[in-house]
Amino acid sequence: MASASLKRPLDILVIGAGVSGLSCARELLRRSPGISLSVLEANDRVGGRTLADSEGTDLGAGYIGPGQDHILAIVEELGLKVTKVYTAGKTTQCLHDVVSYYQGLVPPISPIGTIDLNTAMQEMERLVNLCDMNDPRKTPNAVELDRTTVQQAIEKLCWTSEARSVLRTAIRAIMCAEPCEVSTLGLLWYIKRSGGTRRIFETENGAQDSKVVGGYGIVAPMMAARLPAGTVRLNKPVRTIDSRDATTVTVTCSDGERFVARTVVLAIAPVQQLRIEYLPALPSGKMQALQQFKMGHIIKTFTYYDTPFWREKKLNGSAVCDDGIVVVSMDDTKPDGTLPCIMGFVLTDQATKYATMSTAVMMEALGAHYAKLFKDERGRRPLRIKRKNWSEEPWVGGCYTSVPGPLCLTVHLTALEAPLAEGRILVAGTEVAKVNSGYVDGAVEAGERIARNALVKLGQLPSREYDVMITPPPSKLLPLTPLEYTWIETHLPSMTSFIVAGAASLVGVAAFLVTRWW
Amino acid sequence: MASASLKRPLDILVIGAGVSGLSCARELLRRSPGISLSVLEANDRVGGRTLADSEGTDLGAGYIGPGQDHILAIVEELGLKVTKVYTAGKTTQCLHDVVSYYQGLVPPISPIGTIDLNTAMQEMERLVNLCDMNDPRKTPNAVELDRTTVQQAIEKLCWTSEARSVLRTAIRAIMCAEPCEVSTLGLLWYIKRSGGTRRIFETENGAQDSKVVGGYGIVAPMMAARLPAGTVRLNKPVRTIDSRDATTVTVTCSDGERFVARTVVLAIAPVQQLRIEYLPALPSGKMQALQQFKMGHIIKTFTYYDTPFWREKKLNGSAVCDDGIVVVSMDDTKPDGTLPCIMGFVLTDQATKYATMSTAVMMEALGAHYAKLFKDERGRRPLRIKRKNWSEEPWVGGCYTSVPGPLCLTVHLTALEAPLAEGRILVAGTEVAKVNSGYVDGAVEAGERIARNALVKLGQLPSREYDVMITPPPSKLLPLTPLEYTWIETHLPSMTSFIVAGAASLVGVAAFLVTRWW
Repeated sequence: MASASLKRPLDILVIGAGVSGLSCARELLRRSPGISLSVLEANDRVGGRTLADSEGTDLGAGYIGPGQDHILAIVEELGLKVTKVYTAGKTTQCLHDVVSYYQGLVPPISPIGTIDLNTAMQEMERLVNLCDMNDPRKTPNAVELDRTTVQQAIEKLCWTSEARSVLRTAIRAIMCAEPCEVSTLGLLWYIKRSGGTRRIFETENGAQDSKVVGGYGIVAPMMAARLPAGTVRLNKPVRTIDSRDATTVTVTCSDGERFVARTVVLAIAPVQQLRIEYLPALPSGKMQALQQFKMGHIIKTFTYYDTPFWREKKLNGSAVCDDGIVVVSMDDTKPDGTLPCIMGFVLTDQATKYATMSTAVMMEALGAHYAKLFKDERGRRPLRIKRKNWSEEPWVGGCYTSVPGPLCLTVHLTALEAPLAEGRILVAGTEVAKVNSGYVDGAVEAGERIARNALVKLGQLPSREYDVMITPPPSKLLPLTPLEYTWIETHLPSMTSFIVAGAASLVGVAAFLVTRWW
Repeated sequence: MASASLKRPLDILVIGAGVSGLSCARELLRRSPGISLSVLEANDRVGGRTLADSEGTDLGAGYIGPGQDHILAIVEELGLKVTKVYTAGKTTQCLHDVVSYYQGLVPPISPIGTIDLNTAMQEMERLVNLCDMNDPRKTPNAVELDRTTVQQAIEKLCWTSEARSVLRTAIRAIMCAEPCEVSTLGLLWYIKRSGGTRRIFETENGAQDSKVVGGYGIVAPMMAARLPAGTVRLNKPVRTIDSRDATTVTVTCSDGERFVARTVVLAIAPVQQLRIEYLPALPSGKMQALQQFKMGHIIKTFTYYDTPFWREKKLNGSAVCDDGIVVVSMDDTKPDGTLPCIMGFVLTDQATKYATMSTAVMMEALGAHYAKLFKDERGRRPLRIKRKNWSEEPWVGGCYTSVPGPLCLTVHLTALEAPLAEGRILVAGTEVAKVNSGYVDGAVEAGERIARNALVKLGQLPSREYDVMITPPPSKLLPLTPLEYTWIETHLPSMTSFIVAGAASLVGVAAFLVTRWW
């Protein structure tokens, strides 16, 4: 062991062979083909939070959408295809224990609830628009918004329990956390970087538009295979990063092997950065920041049937449920119709509840859930299930991404992104992406940008390229088209105007009655 | 290296030589003198969050109070003395930038503010009383309280900005966190285990009643010195805990040295437990729990003067300030009058701000603060300062203790406390204490109790002793006497009754005017 220390130091050592680390390595070699480079991966596989099993089922990140041009460029380069998520038919909603089906965007809630939800969504969109994309601290009322939990915001925004429930469910599904755990500014910024409220929630033309044929999880292994042989080292958990020397950084793995590099890129989630021992010790701001960004809490499940019975009933398999084991489900049947399957997200308290339960118990609960949602007893008879509890992955810690709690953005973000050791240790990973943070696309953006930052540091790129996001040309695979608003969304009165109008009508009716009868 | 693996396994291996780990070792040897035992400490010193420098200044935990009988028993056993904190004279308050001085308990705010604050404190005390000491989830409305931040609770409880400011400041001082980061249930339970609102806030007869002569920080080194030679091993950061063998646990340190034991006790903070690599991987509930309990954020400062000038002005040096560098300060002059000094807590955003500033800049800021608070230009001329930023300590991560954010108690506490590997890995530390959690006293309680749990597991104690808290006889050093409520506290009307009375009076006055003039 430790022979590397006797050799010339590596130019760059990337820690983490998830999509961000691999994108970083790819960009480094593209920009500087002669660079010496290694990528260390703690796990026995590459891919991080993306993972496809032998059936091409995405146990991790599964969806790709228009506007995600960083990852789309890679998917295209790798010669992969994408396929639309099945959306033919009606979507299922279970709200306050009542199941209903609907087409389009307006979930079937009461007229008052609809007005209320629409008002709240418009207000959220207004706040998202005000949010400063590059520096969330420059958002109007940033401190106040960052001290307010999303639960508080929902309570303030919504008048009806229906609208509250719909919003709470939507936010749980996008953050894998409870609204009371998330900073309002954190949520707004997250949505902003994902292209807005519509883009983040939508399937068609939204973040859940498509899937990669063969699995999103095959992208990372394919990227790794295109790196020079021996670049990626598996089963190399990093235990110590020593930057006490002025020009090099020495990285020691669990097994004692040492790597010496001029620059180190941390392409791992904040909580995993926290687990490493640093010499010298981390500055206090970084130590605090790394404690704030905990990972979301999710078990991704797949329930297989002998037939996609929901399609017979003109249901698309997409379902949102405000209570029960699965919050959001989607049809995950293969494009050729084989392996009929419903994918379901089991989140937060339900993830805690089912984490220790047997597969049989979980299969029964999933079956009962889908039987209820699709109003079909065949739901109760799944052939088998798959499940992936991402909090059990020691080198990940949770999914989809880090949850921005109160104060995360206004107090801790700067330290989270900050390099260490005068720029010899840089930070990548989807959490620090300038767009689509939390998505695979953000992992690519951050990885590529930090690669260029490293090359600037090494004098191989001009300093004007430091920390500049470069967006690939718009993808032809999934072109970005504007989202259209329905007439009802743009013309529905707000809750306030509804109440004012209601009060005015009452006065009018009263006046009418008075003049008629008295 | 790795010779221990060839020898007979240790009965117990304690990880962490803070007060909890040392108390655990002490209790183990007291109950089972023949036991084989090692204590591994990552740092180059024992004591964890307690640390006295060569002048006996407590850079870490500094105060001891009545009711803390676990640690008082040890202090007494070690032959140490305690000395009262200086309280002669008036306390200083700076609220909304106005400095005032007061004696007793009622801070000098407006009459309306006083009524409001008193109402809020009474409500808080009522909620603390309702809180279930042993299982916070059994508290009425536990889920709702755990989803509500303390900031929300303050906004709901208080009508005036004065009362809000006083409460916010008090809570920042006891949690080293912003109210928006803390779960209301978390705060209530924290206060409950500390003996109630009065006990936690008070100096005299409260948690800040006294100091240990020579420094609280000398307790741990003295405890370590009383263990058999070689028991404590310094500079041994634990990197891996392998419990895949059915009967032993193998612990590997950063330097490669291995220890094999039948039982392991983790006497380190949750965030430090998270940093270790576990084989097999942690269950998801534990992985999630360890990410939730981040450490508080504090720089403890000491500002030295040639004379305790505040005492000349009949001020006791205790000050509370709702804005500025120091939130809470106290006289830290030695009992014999030497080393005149004001201790000051620099918290959260101020800790972030001053973490990277030079000693000279910080000294100027502290001097200006005390000159303003004590209305004396001599404040501006400190001789020197000391400061300890606990988030810079890699093997601590922050102080005083872990902050219970939203959902921590109702969702994550069980997993936080849970043993691993069928009870072969147990969890101690002040965070899991049954009383005075967060205090040194709690560290002792947890350490001693977990020691007995380990002995039960090893068959050396009957199972009825498992997880039973044993409280030492009441200390004679600092006897616990009931706290008295002032007349004003118990008789002041509530804000509601004040408003009702006010409205009634207005009606009365109006009626009077009507009858007189019309």
